[in-house]
Order: sequence, then structure tokens, then C-alpha cells
Amino acid sequence: MSVTGKPFHKKLKFRKLKKAPPGSAPGLITAPEGSLKPIVRLIAFNADVLTQKDVDTLPGLIPLIAEDPSLVHWIDIRGLGDKQFYEELADLFAIHRLEIEDVLSGHQRPKVEESEGYMFITSRMLIYSQDDEIRDEQVTFFLFPDKIISIHDCRDEFFQPVKDRLNQNRGIIRKSGASYLGYALIDSIVDNYFPFLERLGTFLDDLEDNLLDAPDRYSLQNIQASKRRLILFRRIAWSEREKLNDILRTPSPIFSDVARRYLRDTYDHTIQVMDIIDSYREITASLMDIYLSSVSNRLNQVMKFLTVISTIFIPLTFIVGLYGMNFVHFNAATGEQMPLNMPELYHPYGYAGVWGVMIVMVLMMIYYFYRKGWLGEK
Amino acid sequence: MSVTGKPFHKKLKFRKLKKAPPGSAPGLITAPEGSLKPIVRLIAFNADVLTQKDVDTLPGLIPLIAEDPSLVHWIDIRGLGDKQFYEELADLFAIHRLEIEDVLSGHQRPKVEESEGYMFITSRMLIYSQDDEIRDEQVTFFLFPDKIISIHDCRDEFFQPVKDRLNQNRGIIRKSGASYLGYALIDSIVDNYFPFLERLGTFLDDLEDNLLDAPDRYSLQNIQASKRRLILFRRIAWSEREKLNDILRTPSPIFSDVARRYLRDTYDHTIQVMDIIDSYREITASLMDIYLSSVSNRLNQVMKFLTVISTIFIPLTFIVGLYGMNFVHFNAATGEQMPLNMPELYHPYGYAGVWGVMIVMVLMMIYYFYRKGWLGEK
Amino acid sequence: MSVTGKPFHKKLKFRKLKKAPPGSAPGLITAPEGSLKPIVRLIAFNADVLTQKDVDTLPGLIPLIAEDPSLVHWIDIRGLGDKQFYEELADLFAIHRLEIEDVLSGHQRPKVEESEGYMFITSRMLIYSQDDEIRDEQVTFFLFPDKIISIHDCRDEFFQPVKDRLNQNRGIIRKSGASYLGYALIDSIVDNYFPFLERLGTFLDDLEDNLLDAPDRYSLQNIQASKRRLILFRRIAWSEREKLNDILRTPSPIFSDVARRYLRDTYDHTIQVMDIIDSYREITASLMDIYLSSVSNRLNQVMKFLTVISTIFIPLTFIVGLYGMNFVHFNAATGEQMPLNMPELYHPYGYAGVWGVMIVMVLMMIYYFYRKGWLGEK
Amino acid sequence: MSVTGKPFHKKLKFRKLKKAPPGSAPGLITAPEGSLKPIVRLIAFNADVLTQKDVDTLPGLIPLIAEDPSLVHWIDIRGLGDKQFYEELADLFAIHRLEIEDVLSGHQRPKVEESEGYMFITSRMLIYSQDDEIRDEQVTFFLFPDKIISIHDCRDEFFQPVKDRLNQNRGIIRKSGASYLGYALIDSIVDNYFPFLERLGTFLDDLEDNLLDAPDRYSLQNIQASKRRLILFRRIAWSEREKLNDILRTPSPIFSDVARRYLRDTYDHTIQVMDIIDSYREITASLMDIYLSSVSNRLNQVMKFLTVISTIFIPLTFIVGLYGMNFVHFNAATGEQMPLNMPELYHPYGYAGVWGVMIVMVLMMIYYFYRKGWLGEK
Amino acid sequence: MSVTGKPFHKKLKFRKLKKAPPGSAPGLITAPEGSLKPIVRLIAFNADVLTQKDVDTLPGLIPLIAEDPSLVHWIDIRGLGDKQFYEELADLFAIHRLEIEDVLSGHQRPKVEESEGYMFITSRMLIYSQDDEIRDEQVTFFLFPDKIISIHDCRDEFFQPVKDRLNQNRGIIRKSGASYLGYALIDSIVDNYFPFLERLGTFLDDLEDNLLDAPDRYSLQNIQASKRRLILFRRIAWSEREKLNDILRTPSPIFSDVARRYLRDTYDHTIQVMDIIDSYREITASLMDIYLSSVSNRLNQVMKFLTVISTIFIPLTFIVGLYGMNFVHFNAATGEQMPLNMPELYHPYGYAGVWGVMIVMVLMMIYYFYRKGWLGEK
Repeated sequence: MSVTGKPFHKKLKFRKLKKAPPGSAPGLITAPEGSLKPIVRLIAFNADVLTQKDVDTLPGLIPLIAEDPSLVHWIDIRGLGDKQFYEELADLFAIHRLEIEDVLSGHQRPKVEESEGYMFITSRMLIYSQDDEIRDEQVTFFLFPDKIISIHDCRDEFFQPVKDRLNQNRGIIRKSGASYLGYALIDSIVDNYFPFLERLGTFLDDLEDNLLDAPDRYSLQNIQASKRRLILFRRIAWSEREKLNDILRTPSPIFSDVARRYLRDTYDHTIQVMDIIDSYREITASLMDIYLSSVSNRLNQVMKFLTVISTIFIPLTFIVGLYGMNFVHFNAATGEQMPLNMPELYHPYGYAGVWGVMIVMVLMMIYYFYRKGWLGEK
Repeated sequence: MSVTGKPFHKKLKFRKLKKAPPGSAPGLITAPEGSLKPIVRLIAFNADVLTQKDVDTLPGLIPLIAEDPSLVHWIDIRGLGDKQFYEELADLFAIHRLEIEDVLSGHQRPKVEESEGYMFITSRMLIYSQDDEIRDEQVTFFLFPDKIISIHDCRDEFFQPVKDRLNQNRGIIRKSGASYLGYALIDSIVDNYFPFLERLGTFLDDLEDNLLDAPDRYSLQNIQASKRRLILFRRIAWSEREKLNDILRTPSPIFSDVARRYLRDTYDHTIQVMDIIDSYREITASLMDIYLSSVSNRLNQVMKFLTVISTIFIPLTFIVGLYGMNFVHFNAATGEQMPLNMPELYHPYGYAGVWGVMIVMVLMMIYYFYRKGWLGEK
Repeated sequence: MSVTGKPFHKKLKFRKLKKAPPGSAPGLITAPEGSLKPIVRLIAFNADVLTQKDVDTLPGLIPLIAEDPSLVHWIDIRGLGDKQFYEELADLFAIHRLEIEDVLSGHQRPKVEESEGYMFITSRMLIYSQDDEIRDEQVTFFLFPDKIISIHDCRDEFFQPVKDRLNQNRGIIRKSGASYLGYALIDSIVDNYFPFLERLGTFLDDLEDNLLDAPDRYSLQNIQASKRRLILFRRIAWSEREKLNDILRTPSPIFSDVARRYLRDTYDHTIQVMDIIDSYREITASLMDIYLSSVSNRLNQVMKFLTVISTIFIPLTFIVGLYGMNFVHFNAATGEQMPLNMPELYHPYGYAGVWGVMIVMVLMMIYYFYRKGWLGEK
Repeated sequence: MSVTGKPFHKKLKFRKLKKAPPGSAPGLITAPEGSLKPIVRLIAFNADVLTQKDVDTLPGLIPLIAEDPSLVHWIDIRGLGDKQFYEELADLFAIHRLEIEDVLSGHQRPKVEESEGYMFITSRMLIYSQDDEIRDEQVTFFLFPDKIISIHDCRDEFFQPVKDRLNQNRGIIRKSGASYLGYALIDSIVDNYFPFLERLGTFLDDLEDNLLDAPDRYSLQNIQASKRRLILFRRIAWSEREKLNDILRTPSPIFSDVARRYLRDTYDHTIQVMDIIDSYREITASLMDIYLSSVSNRLNQVMKFLTVISTIFIPLTFIVGLYGMNFVHFNAATGEQMPLNMPELYHPYGYAGVWGVMIVMVLMMIYYFYRKGWLGEK
Repeated sequence: MSVTGKPFHKKLKFRKLKKAPPGSAPGLITAPEGSLKPIVRLIAFNADVLTQKDVDTLPGLIPLIAEDPSLVHWIDIRGLGDKQFYEELADLFAIHRLEIEDVLSGHQRPKVEESEGYMFITSRMLIYSQDDEIRDEQVTFFLFPDKIISIHDCRDEFFQPVKDRLNQNRGIIRKSGASYLGYALIDSIVDNYFPFLERLGTFLDDLEDNLLDAPDRYSLQNIQASKRRLILFRRIAWSEREKLNDILRTPSPIFSDVARRYLRDTYDHTIQVMDIIDSYREITASLMDIYLSSVSNRLNQVMKFLTVISTIFIPLTFIVGLYGMNFVHFNAATGEQMPLNMPELYHPYGYAGVWGVMIVMVLMMIYYFYRKGWLGEK
């Protein structure tokens, strides 16, 4: 993420927003193009036990879950590329079709909806794509009293730290039910915003240094790029905060008091994220000001340079032009003497005198410009 | 919608806003000038049956509707150009005169009003006019418990996708009553905003490329044009969102719970549209900044060019002027020798020497400008 | 309201705001300077009857009103210039002194106050003054259950359209009581805003054309003028909307349900007015941007012109200066030959050669500038 | 308050904000430095009687007030410079120490606090200081059911108009109890804002004229000065409005219904003041735009001038340089004829011809510049 | 904090925000790197007694506190660098782990949380770091009904003034219980903002003077620096105000009525702080405007200078070039007389005449520039 040299700017091309053509039936389940085949992993645990199983078919899930209903079950699905799979999922867990459509659209803002028997929660994960560019990926949760379904469309293990905590039985995560797990998953997404903020902060710091020292042709593009990033980031963080606020205010029995207590902490983090994003936006706006004034300043430098050079040489050129005039001192043709015509030219020290005058003039002007400060400053 | 070459700008001339002269009686029904003669189509359906009929006269509608009251009836009217027709309509369906006036004015913001026995809903459809310009067309609905009247003033089939779904009996549209149909119609209007957003996004992307590479005389007009589009679009989307929010909060029996559940989804879409519009507005503001700084940068380029040329030649011109002076070395008239006067002129390598000095000066200056970066950058 | 040629700007000088000196007793009734003598017209009507009478003295009103209490009475007063008259008026109709003070101050924002037995409503009428300048005039209403007092300080017949509707018994105005008449009067004031909006819209359109084509010295003043107009207009429209909202929310028995239903329509119009004003404000801000960038662009043009001329002639001047040097080829005094000194001067085609070189240089530079685009664009 | 000539700007130096060092005990009563010794005047009145007495010691007040408890008592104190005095005051009237601290700090925002048995109200008076600069002075009221204490720290008679109304028994002021007097005092402070607004309006008008005609070096300072004034003024007016709103909403028995009715009028005035201040702020922002564009315009003028002069003389200088070249027509040393070398010099009308060419060129260029409009505009 | 000479700007590098890696268990207690070892001091007091003791181990605290439960105990902890210490603390006083995590993170916004039996309050102290830079330090309080734990991570005695008041038994601090002590501690933090405001105010004043007189290369950096400071400061003050508002609205029994009454005063101070910060922000924005216009003005100065010099010398250079032409008056080779060719050269007063003409021209131009005002203004 170095600032100088190569353009940081890759322009965050606006993505397609909705796959289904206008006016088509709602709740229409279509797998987005280019999405991955779903992989399902079932994690079942309580304070004492933890089992993980990769599941091939959805119907195979039901007996596994039914085996020990006292366990908390986390059904972790990665990949959206199977229409039939998601129709089955909707049927198996009595999920509303509209919500499955939301899962598959991949472009939902963070939101929460309470449905009968479960909560539907969407979040957006920030990740770095191959080319060092920010990308945001939708993650959806169906939160039931005793189980969680999490869905996202990439092979990355977003929730590795949570899985580690489960495996190592750290903290209270194995003892606190499904809603605490839900909190842990949401929290890990929000926590993930901080490294991005830090990276953006460093980038803005570097950019400011660059702008104050030596703005180049990429400066403007970098400012624009960070502006766009912040617009995107702000939209996500703002919705995330609203979502958490909604969950905290809704008296749903699905979220336990303990999980709610911790979620309040996550909510505080989103406020903190928003605060910092807003500061960064103000700073980005300042950077634009600095850039614009640097453009003006450089124009000033150029003009000062031109003025100094011109002002020094224009009078000198006048003087040498003066003694290039051909006024006739002694008209050889007529023998007429015209002693007033350019007697300087006939003086043995005339040339030296002109040099003297010119040198004095130059020195005076340099002194003048020096005092005006047009020479010293870089 | 290409950016360079021809101006995108067609200026969205402000339209006339209200036809009736100030102070005239409210509820005054006057057909707007240039509007089309109304065409009526009656679509009656339930889960099993679907009939379509073009109706000539309004009174003919009543028996058709009365034929089977268990069906849902959709009365699709296209064209506002018949005062008497709308007076009859008001009488037949007990519609308030003020609302018919709103229908005919054609300039209502999206809004909803609950009247006795029906809901009055206005929306605005976005369409591309012939010359690739955005135009918004008013669509009004009267939503009764068992029938819907939809009215707009152009021959385009805005609702073809909904009609197809009805014909093909796709989804739950034929089983869910009039209010679900109402939802489907409103949703198809909001869905229609997305292609426009996408097009605007592509346009802004192209425009930014154009501005960073080679801003031309149309750049400014294009920025202004997209600003105006977004002002217009935002006003419509904002009212649309408010309208949907009003419907969702109002506990009217006309909207069934199912339709309401789906309408919440449409409401989410309007929030998404607003989000994107606001991002686009910020980006448009950035584009203006880029444009202004590009103007300054070009001035810088021009000035640097002038400065480089002037600075190289002004000292040279001084030097050649210097040796154009006529100081007398040997006064032929008096025979006086003045060896200090311009001895350089009498040196066999004087001319070559001057050339040498000048070439060295030019090289030094070029090196100086090169180091200052005034030569390299485009 | 043409844009070019003469300045549109007349600066909307800020008016005196409050006549009474600070600290003077409230409810102090003083007629504003330069205001007109009050003229009173009494219009009494019901669905069948309508009488109009010009009344000379206020006490004469009472028996006229008492004559047939079943009629609706509209007391239309034009002119504020009689302190005693308004004191009598307050006494006759039990109006609070503070409200009479508000009537006479002439600078109230649109507002509504409910008093015992009547509502006190102020509005602001927009009118064009002689010199094509916008002026706003205060109109106040005292709305009683069975009569209305309307007061404004100019001879213009603001309410002619309403009077016509009364005379011609059009619509429901003669059948719907005093509060419907109140609605009609308020509505005619709001309706009157639309022609102003349209005129402002046309003006902004013209101004944008003017700015994009050929900004002149009046452009800036015109932008400022429309900004000021919009500030003024917005203040009025905003208060008007708030006032109507207040009336609609207050459950006063004075406004009948029918009038209230219609007033909601007027309220919608004020929202529409606000929407448009806000769009216009954004467009005016854009115009300022266009103006500023046009100033920069013109500077660019000037600088390009100077640079082209300078760059073409400065090297040429150097060349002719070069061959104006006096290096001695053959020293006549000493007979010394110095063949390296300026042999070009002694070449028979030297002069022609110099011309050739200069012409080639000029052509090359013109080609260079042409490719850089510094010649073609206007 | 003339605009040109002398700078209006005196910079409103930020004042010290809190005298007590951080962490010191609250309710600590310390007299501010440089404040005046308190002077007490007791005014007692009812509809029939009015007595005024200057009181020397606070304890002397109590019997005077006790003399006739049916009267309303106004204790008008001017001067904060006596710590002991205010400690006594707090004890005598059971005033909370924190409020006495607020009185003495002199930097409270307008606010109201209801305490047991009285209301504590602070306002800020605007006054012109000696050097024509705006200054705001704190005025505090303790409003009891039957008496008022007013305190401010300068000798000016802020409330002379109210005292006159009391003396002359004008209006209802002598008949309406302590809370009406409280209203009258607060109202006189708000009324006092209007002359300041008017003066600022005139100033802005003058400034705009000045900017459009001939901006000078003080223009920028004047704009900044009016911006600062408006920031200060807005802060005061906003708090004043909030304070009045608080009083109106609080159902305290201390404010009688009559006084409350009148206070609503004062509240309306603060809304009006805020409206106007906000307009002025927008206008001040416009003035900055005008100033900046005037700076650019002047640069344009300078550059046009330079370009015209340069463009006229540079080609001429080239031409005269051309004929200053020394190409040899007839080599006297060798007798060689070189007829192609500068034959113009040997033409009898050569000199006249050059003059002719130069005059034609100048005329053409002047015509060109005239058509481009670079000559005509001032 | 002088403005000129050295850059004020030290750029407030963005700090690391959260120590724990994303997704790690919440309530994880880790001591921040580089933090100090905790030092504990126990202050126990009532109106009559006050004892201070430095405590080595936390378990040693319990018997000391239990000794006399009627006393108020203040446990003042400085230093965060001991994980185990804080785990013990959480256990001893039944503090929630999440709150201990907040204490140790060191980056909480000011907030209040009510837990069972205590209130958890975070504040941010502003202090000057070694290099005259603003730094903010987190201070956290656990407020129990009869004791307070205060924690911060530096050796500075933030609360010396409060300790002095306790020692000297000034005011009511020893008589008013733990919550009044809590108020006193929070108040001393808010009080501490005022010297910073004052310093910023002075800085802005100096900066404005500097900008209006002689902006230098540090001006821009100073403006940016004060902008960043204000962004930081505002964020802190805003949260502080919200926190106090939360405390005031929450009807917790932990805060006594007396303490609440005083806290309202502190709340007023935060409002005042916010007011001033917002004014400063507006002023900083103005300073940027002044800076930008000063850059433009300097360009104007440079261009005027160049134009004056060029305009004076360019015509003179033309004239002297004119008489440097070699038109032949008398062709010695052919004996031809060409009297029209440059007769001026053969006039005995030709040279003097040219000087005369040139001097007149220079005087005229100087007069012209003087009248245009291009010479006089600095």
C-alpha cells in the first residue's frame, strides 16, 4: 500500500446490484453466476463435547442434528452456487423464500429480520482481494434457539478464530448456547474492521506526508480512492451499527441476556468504527484541500521563477539593445560631427562601464528578490 | 451513453408543474394537454382462472366486475386525455375528486393516502425517452380490497413482467389477492430503478476515467448533467421510500399480511437505492473537484512550458544583444584605440566562443528543468 | 427576466424588521409608516345567496353580520394604516392585542395560533413589484367558526380567483362553511408560489446556458441574486409548510373535516414547493462552480495565447539577434582575417537561409501547438 | 460601520472562559477580576404605587421587602465585584451556591433552571463597546413568585425602557405580577437583537457592493469579521431560543399564564432572529465566493494586460531585430556582391515600408483583441 | 505554541486501536505493551477522618476497606501493566470481565454502563506530552455506593486538586459520599478541557494574524494540525457530553441527588465546550479560505510585478531595436542617397530625442500603473 510510484487507485468499479430482471417474481431462488458449490460443515458442541462433520447432502443433516438435541449445532455453509440446495434448505428449516433470495443476491446491507422461530441476520465481511483491493463479502446467519446456519460465498475460513476458541474451549463460548455463538460470529466480523481502519489510517498518514512534501500525479487518484473506500466502508459500518441496535432493542427470546450483554460491546465497537471513519472522511477532505493548494503553490513557484528570470534579463536586454542603436556620431559621408549621439560608444571604458552597470543592476535585483523571499523558499 | 465526443448534457429542462391557474377550485378535473385517450383493460383472475378484456366504456366495466366477485380485478388504464372518463371513474368507484385531480396533474410525488374503502398510491416510473434521456412518468393506483385500478399516461406496457407472471401463474401471485398484486406492481416500479442506477454508475466510472486522462469541454457539462439526474432521482426515491414506510406503518386492512411481508422487501430495496444514490452524489462532487484541479493542472502545464521556453531564450537573447552593441574598439575617425571596448569581437574564436557559452547554458538549464521535473511529466 | 445584457441583480435590500423600539410595551398598536388606509368589504354568502358590501366604519359591520347569522361572512380588509381602526377591530371581535401587533408589524413568518374562539393564521404572499423584483407581502386571517377576517396591506386583489368562484358558485365553496373558505384563501396563496418557481426555473436554465456559452460580468451577480431569492423563498415556504402541518395536527373544531381534507392537499403542495426549492438551491450551487471554473478556463485561454505567441517569437528574436552581433570577420584596421567569426553573414544565401530556418521553426511549433490542442479549441 | 478605508476587523479575541483553576471546588464564589462594586436598587410596585430606593447593604433589603408583601419587588443589581455580597445574597434568598457561581463566572449560555421556590434564568445582552465592536454581557434573573432579582456587571441601564413603562404605568406591566415583569425584562433583551441584525444586514449589503465594485485588502478581513460575529450571535440566539422553549414547556407555577402567553411572542422573535442569522450566514458564505472569484478575475485582468502588451510588441521586436542583422550585401573586402542578402535594407523606402508593416500589424492585433473583448471590459 | 518559525504540526499519528487480534475471545484480559506496573493508593475519609495508604497487594485491600465501612474509600490505581492484578481486581469487586477488558484496551470512548451494584464510567483526560503535543489518556471509574476505583495508565497525578480539597476538607467533598467524589473526579477531567480550549483559541488567533500578514510554508500545516486536534477533541467532548447526559437521565441509586445536581453543572460545561469547539471548527475552515485566497493573492502580486516590469521594458526594447536596424541611408558602394531610411540616426539630437521619448513613455506607464493600483499595495 505504498503511496508513491504506482497508483493505488483501482477504482472500485460499481458492481451489478440485482440479478433478477425487474418485475420478476419475488422469492425467486436463482444461484448467482460464478458462485461456488456449497460445502456444509456441521459443528455440534456443548461444554464437554465438540464434533465436526462435513456433510454431503442436506437431508443427511437432520438425523445428525436430531441425534443429540441438547447440543448447539452450527451449520457452516460456504458457496451459493446451487439453487436446489437452497430450496431444500428453506424447506428443511422453514425459512422464508424472500430471505433465501436475500442470501443468494449477495448484495444485502447488514440488517436483521425476526421471523417465526429464528432471526435472519446479514453482515458484510471486509477482505483484501488478490490485488490488494478492498472487497466486501456478504455473510448471512439464521439464528435459531439451538442452532445457527452461517452462509457465505467464498472458500476463506472467515471464522477460524471462533472455531479455534470452540476447539480450545476458551472463554465461555462452549457453555453459553447458540446466541452467544451468534454473538461471537458477528463480533469477529466487526473486529475484522479494525485492521482495515488501521491500514487506511497509515495510508492517509503516508498520503499527507506525500502531499506536503512532493505531490505527484497519483496523489489525486489516491485521494479519490480513499474517498471511495470510505464511502463504501461507511455504508457498511453504518448499517452494521443499525443492525446491532435493532437486535439490542428487540426483545427477542432468541438472544440470551448474556449474549445481549456481549453484543452491546460489539455495538460499542461499531460506534467506534463510525467515529474513526468520520474522522478519516474529514481528513480526506483536508487532503483534497492540501492537494489543491499545492497545485496553486506550484503555479506560484513557476511564476516566481519566470518573473525572476524575466525581470533580471529584460532590463539587461534593453541596455544592450540601447548600445546596439546606430545613431551616427560622425557622419563619414558629410563629415558632420554629432557629439551628442551615443558618446558612450566612443569612450574607452564604455564597454566596461556598461558591464559595471549591468552587474550592479543584477545584484540589486537579486537582493530585492531575496528580500521578497522569491529565491530562498524551495 | 458514451462520454467523450458528444455532449451527454441535455439539461432536463424544468417542466411545468401545475396546470390549473392559481386560486382555481380544487378537485377541478381537467385533462392535461397532449395526453392520450384512455384505454382500459380488465384482467380478472384467481388461482384457476384468468381472463383479459379490453373495455370500451366505463359503465361496461361494472357488470363485468359484478359477474364473479370472487375474482381479483385489475383495471389497467393507459391515457389521461379524457376529462369525462375520469369524472365517470370517480363516480363509479366512489373516488374523491381531489385524488382524480392528483392523477391528472401528473406531477405528484410518490405518496399514499388512505381513503374510505381504498388506498390511493402514486409512484413514479423511470423510463428512457427517445433521445436517451431519463424521464419519469407518474403511475397511480387505487387499491381496493378486491380490485386494483392502475393509471398512467403512456402506451408503454410498464407492467408486462407482472402480466407474464399472471399469465404463467408463476409464484403466488394468482393466489394472494389484490393487495399482493398491488405489491407486485409497486415492486416492479422500484425494481426498475436498478438498471438506471447501474447505467449511472457506468457513466460515472467512464466520466472519472475521462477526467483523469483527458478532460474536455464536455466534461463539465457531463458532471452537471449527472448531478441534475441524481437530484431528480433522489427526490423520487426518497418519496418512494417514505411512501412505502407509510404503508408499512399504517395498519390498514387493505394490505394483507403476506403482501406487507413482501412490501418490506421492496422497502429494503428503496433503502438500497437511496444508499447508492447518496454514494453517487458524493462521487459526483469528487468529480467536480477532479475537474477543477485538472483545469489548474493544465494551467500549470502551460505556464511551465512558457517558463521553460522563456528561461532558455531570454538569457541567450541577452548575450546576442550584448555582442550587437556598437562600442568602438578603434575609432577610424580619430585613430584612437580603445582596447577595452568589446575585445571579444576582435578575437578569431569569439563567435565560436559565444556559441560554446550559449550551448553550455542551454544544457545546464535543460538539466535544471529536468531535475525540477518540468520536462518529464506529460 | 432576460439574463444577458442587463443585470438581473437588484439585491433584495434587507428590510427593517420591527418598528417598535426595543423594550417598548408589547401589544402596542402602531400603524406602520407609509401603509394604506384600511378598506373593508363584507361578503356574506350561503349556497343560495351572496351579497357584497363596502363598509365605511367598523361599528357598522356588527348589525350587518347580525342580520343573518346563518350566512358565512368574509371581512376583507386591505390597508394597515389606521391605529384606531385596529384597536376597534380587536375590541369588536375579542382579538388579542398581541395578534393585532403581529398583523401590523408586517414581518411575521407564516404561523398559526389558536386563541379562544378563533384561529390566527399568517401567510406570506409572493408578488412581483413594479421593477420585476420579488416582494413578499404579509396576509393574516382570523378564522372564526362562521366568519373570516382577512387583512393585507396593499390594494391588489390577491383573492380575485376565490371571489370569482364565490360569485359563480363553482365547486363546493358556497356550501362548505367558513373553514372551507379559509382553506380556499390559504390554498390560493400557496398556489401562487408555483408561477414563481417556474419563472425561477426558467431563469436558472437561461443562466446555465449563459454560463456554459459566454459568462459575462453579470453572471456572478445573477447567481447571487437567485441564491438570495431562494433563501427568502425557502424561509417562507418552510414556515408555510410548518404552519399547515400545525393546523392539520391540531384537533381544533374550527376547521371542519372537509376543509381539513382539502388542506392536506395544500400541505402536499408546500412539500412539493420545498422539494423544488431545494433542487434549485443545489443547481444554483452548481452554477457557482461552473462560473468559477469558467473564470479559470478563461485564464487558461489567455495564458495559452500568450504562450503560443511568446514561444513562436522568442526563438526567432534570438536568431535575428544572433546575426545582429558584430563579431569581426575581417579586421580592416589590422587586415586580420577571422574566418570563424560569423561566416554565415558572408554567405550569399545567408539571409535566405535564416528565413528558411525561421519558417521551418514556426511551422514546427504551430504543428506542435496544434497537436497539443492549444490552437483548435475556442 | 463604513466598509472601505479602514478595517472593520477587530477580531473578537477569544476571552478567558472560566476563572477557577481546574479541579477546584464547585460553588466556589469568587468575584471576577476587574468587575464593578455592586449597586442595588429596589423597585416596589403594584397597579397604584411605585417606589424606588437605592439600597446600601443587603440586610437592609429584607425589612423593605417585608414592609408590604402585596407589592412586586424588583431588586436590580449592577456589578459583580464583591464576593461577600453575593454570599450574603445566596443566604438571604436561599439561592444555590452553584447558581451564584454561574452568575459570577459571566460566561454562561442562556439557560433556565428551576430550583425550589424560584427560577434561575441567564440571558446575554448584546451591546456595542466603545470601539464600535459587538460585546455580549451576561444578565441573570432569579424569578420568585413575588419578586425578581436581576444582575449584570456594567453600569449601563439595560432596562431603562422597562423602567419607563413602570413609571408611566403603561400597558399591563404594573397589574400583572412578577412573572410578567420577568417576561418584560427577557423580552427587552431579545428585542435588543433586532438593531444588531439590522446593522449587520446593512453591513453585508455594503460589503457586497464593495466586493462587486472594488474589492480591497480589507474585504477579506471584513468577511471574516462578519462570519465571526454571526458565529457568536448564532450561539447566543440559539441558546436563548432553547431557553424560552424550556420555560414554555415547563409547567412551573412561577410563570403566570398571562406572562407565558406573552413569552410565546418573545419565543417567536427568537425564531425570527435565528432565521435571519441563518440567512446572513449563507450570504456571508456567498460573499466569500464573490471575493475569491474577484481575486481570480483580477488575475485574469492582469494576465490579459500582459498578454496584450506582449503580443503587440513581441512581433514588432522580432521585425526590428530582423533588420538589425548584419548579413553582408556587398563585401567591401572582396568586392563580392550578395544581392540576396537583405536587399530590403538597400531599398529607398525600406524603412518606411517596415513602419508600414508594423503599423498594420498593430492595428490588426488591436482589432483582434477588441473582438475577443480583452480591451473593452474594465 | 508559537506559530511562525517552526512547524506546529506533528501529525497526531493514528494509534493502534485494539490490541486483541480479530475474533479472539471477549473479556480476554491482556495487559497492553509498554504499560506501567499498577500502583494502588487507598484514601479513606469521612467528614472527620482522612487516611491515605499505599497498598502493595490487592488482597491486602479488603481488610483495610472492611475496617471501617462507614468511611468512603477511594482506590486510586495508576498503571495497567499487570494482567493478573486486574483479574484479581475483577474477582475481588465482582467486576464484569468485559469492563476490565475495556479498562485495559485504553481506547474506549467516554461512556457509562450500569452494572449490578456499580457504575462503570470511562473518561478521557487531555494532557500535553513532552513535545508540546496533545495526548488523551483514558481514565476509568468503578463507582460503588460507598467506594470508587479510579484507574489510569500514567504516573501523573491527574487528581491532585481533588486530593487537595479532600486534605484541606474544603467545600462539601468530605461530607457528601462516594458519588459526590465521583462527580468531583469527572468534573476535574472536564474542567481540564478549558485550558486546552484557551490554548487552541490563542493559537487560532495567532494563526489568523499570521495568515493575514505573512502566510508561510508552515501555515497550511498549522491549519491542518488544528483541524486534526479539533476532530480529536470534538470526538472526546461529544462522547463526554453524551455520557453525562446518560448518567443524568438514568435513575440509578448510586448517584445521590446532590451529586446529580452538581453533575448537571458539569454537563453544562461540556455543552459549553462543544459550542466552543464548533466555533473553532468554523474558524479553522475560514482560515483555510484565507490561506487559499492568500495563495491566489500572492500569485496576483507576482503577476503584477512581472507585468509591470515587462510592460515598461518591452516597448523600450522595441524602440532601441528599431534604431538598431541597418537600413542604408547612404550606400557608399553605389553612392546612392536614401534620405527616407532612418533619417533619425543622422540627426544631431537623435539619440537625445530617443532618450526623451523613452523617459516620457516610462513616466506615463508608471503613472498608469500607479492609478491602477498595481504599484502602491504591498
